[in-house]
Amino acid sequence: MKCLNCGYETSLDQHNITCPKCGGILEIIIELKNFTFNNLKGRGVWRYKDAIPGNYTKIVSMNEGGTPLIKTKEEGKEIYYKFEGANPTGSFKDRGMTVAVSSALNTNYKVVVAASTGNTAASAAAYAARSGLKIFLVLPKGKVALGKLAQSILYGANIIEVNGSFDVAMNSVLKMYKDLGIVYPLNSFNPWRLEGQKTIAYEIAEEIGVPDSIIVPVGNAGNIYAIWKGFKELMENGSINKIPRMIGIQAEGASPIAKAIAKGSELPVFTNNPETIATAIRIGKPVNWIKAMKAIHNSNGTALCVSDNEIIEAQKELARKEGIGAEPASAAALAGYKKALHEGIINEKEKTVLILTGHALKDPDSMLRINTKIMSLNPEEIEKNVLGEINVNN
Amino acid sequence: MKCLNCGYETSLDQHNITCPKCGGILEIIIELKNFTFNNLKGRGVWRYKDAIPGNYTKIVSMNEGGTPLIKTKEEGKEIYYKFEGANPTGSFKDRGMTVAVSSALNTNYKVVVAASTGNTAASAAAYAARSGLKIFLVLPKGKVALGKLAQSILYGANIIEVNGSFDVAMNSVLKMYKDLGIVYPLNSFNPWRLEGQKTIAYEIAEEIGVPDSIIVPVGNAGNIYAIWKGFKELMENGSINKIPRMIGIQAEGASPIAKAIAKGSELPVFTNNPETIATAIRIGKPVNWIKAMKAIHNSNGTALCVSDNEIIEAQKELARKEGIGAEPASAAALAGYKKALHEGIINEKEKTVLILTGHALKDPDSMLRINTKIMSLNPEEIEKNVLGEINVNN
Repeated sequence: MKCLNCGYETSLDQHNITCPKCGGILEIIIELKNFTFNNLKGRGVWRYKDAIPGNYTKIVSMNEGGTPLIKTKEEGKEIYYKFEGANPTGSFKDRGMTVAVSSALNTNYKVVVAASTGNTAASAAAYAARSGLKIFLVLPKGKVALGKLAQSILYGANIIEVNGSFDVAMNSVLKMYKDLGIVYPLNSFNPWRLEGQKTIAYEIAEEIGVPDSIIVPVGNAGNIYAIWKGFKELMENGSINKIPRMIGIQAEGASPIAKAIAKGSELPVFTNNPETIATAIRIGKPVNWIKAMKAIHNSNGTALCVSDNEIIEAQKELARKEGIGAEPASAAALAGYKKALHEGIINEKEKTVLILTGHALKDPDSMLRINTKIMSLNPEEIEKNVLGEINVNN
Repeated sequence: MKCLNCGYETSLDQHNITCPKCGGILEIIIELKNFTFNNLKGRGVWRYKDAIPGNYTKIVSMNEGGTPLIKTKEEGKEIYYKFEGANPTGSFKDRGMTVAVSSALNTNYKVVVAASTGNTAASAAAYAARSGLKIFLVLPKGKVALGKLAQSILYGANIIEVNGSFDVAMNSVLKMYKDLGIVYPLNSFNPWRLEGQKTIAYEIAEEIGVPDSIIVPVGNAGNIYAIWKGFKELMENGSINKIPRMIGIQAEGASPIAKAIAKGSELPVFTNNPETIATAIRIGKPVNWIKAMKAIHNSNGTALCVSDNEIIEAQKELARKEGIGAEPASAAALAGYKKALHEGIINEKEKTVLILTGHALKDPDSMLRINTKIMSLNPEEIEKNVLGEINVNN
């Protein structure tokens, strides 16, 4: 393990979550031994158990992962949507949670905590419930999409609504972890969680080989690194022969990394007041920014930002052309793909995978604001009206 | 194909949806030729394409199916949850829709229609969007769960809210199909849809062999038949050596089939005013009742009804013990399982699969009414409060 802040190196130890020396972000460095795609068994995250470091006497799993990689219906194009909404709680977070919560059990913690814009909360609450661990969630008050808040309630988590943004909630969790020592943090600064998320890369590589680019929404910035790390491990192991460009997408009002990339800076342009309708990526101070920068630079990638209007349009297009229902933050990947095409960063013949991080059902309000035709009729009026509608349009 | 109403028999024809003679419910009878679990490829519904009758020049698919079969965390027990919430639109309906919508394309329809309590609507709208077909949905006004209505809007379906129950909406669709001839019905009286749904049985048999019992929520009553049909085909083919007992679960206020079974009647006890918080099974006149009866009788199964309170408790237990978030109609399966245990219909050592038909996110209101601890705090108060809560409980 290596600290990306102070450079401190130590051997792999499941008890280490942040740097034992400076508290900085830790990187888990592993070498795949005897790993090959040819003898894997089972489905989902734990299909790649030989690539997941740590000891797990008891695995808390709901067969997460193994999500559909949906090819665009546009003929002749190699665009794929990795639909993470098909995970048990409806987002990619489940991949990391199965590893982190299993790790918490194995290191004898009794209490887990997480700050969240919503998806982490829902996932952490579900896995904590299954594991029997006590859980506290810190959520920015009034800023969590309805479905996600409802999930946290259903799972019986202890919910703390904090007066402040996600970044304030995140800080509270970091502080609590360091001060108390007895609460296990389930946020993505916990590098063990990312070991689960990296299986997105393993699944893509196994199913369609290595794409030219991966387009991924960036909030707290752990996922773009986790996916890159997966490809990197496979490449070092000889299972694949290149690494895709990692292209991160942020919302204009919450784009510390995209802004940094745009101006050639190594440091994010943090904001105290992130704003976007894509609540899952409404984050002004991504805790994993240093990892995201590493993934972007090392893969010859980039980061772009998209407007809320572009996100809304992309969500609608994804649903109405492809049939895929994704939450706004996920739709940002499609908006970003279009921008990358427009700016000549990628071309439409390349093999590209868009990571759709969460289900449309996570945020019903985002769907309800889109227009559609609704008629209120008595039973005997239906046939005439349908016939009229069909004829008008033919 | 054989009509379950008048007995008329005809050869397999994809254009037949109801009986050409009397308009009754048609059964598709096939023999699996050369089918074996040993040479299957791909994942999801179309993994079993050799078992799906009909011609499909263009398949409208989002890699539906291939859902997790989650084993209970209770040690020593062989209880499994088939989590259909992991389908693209969050319910098992996607399995049938990929087949029915592909079939509509292949038979040159331009318009599809469906009546729905919500899940069929969401799924039909998604697959219609992906196929490019025009769609009309007939929904009972004010009786569709929020997430499902929002999905139908997102997908851009033409929505008709009818003043009446689901059964009224269903009748309108049946009438429209018969009167107009140009609209393809996506409801489960369409036997091609059930050919997709039967893959639930194929997946279970392939993954864990044949369970002793299958517990399945019953609304319009197509799914219990479809799953039974899948096992029956595999048994006739010699791939498996028994058929599980099919145990259907209905909500007390909408239990025409469970009531019939209870009094030994062959005819359902229809109701004009079905009532239950489990909106997905709030159906008083199940269009596939005759198929459900067949599945239950031929498998030595039964049907039970559970109260709304039992459903609410089961939804909570499923989430807080197992970590699985299912909508109320799905939780009815767990409530029904408990009742079946209590009544000695099954014992807890049997291998049992509960079909969880839809995701908890489909119905956020159902989650929000469950109690949990919510604290509203300033950042500096969090640590003290969490420590207090931990100490109180230890």
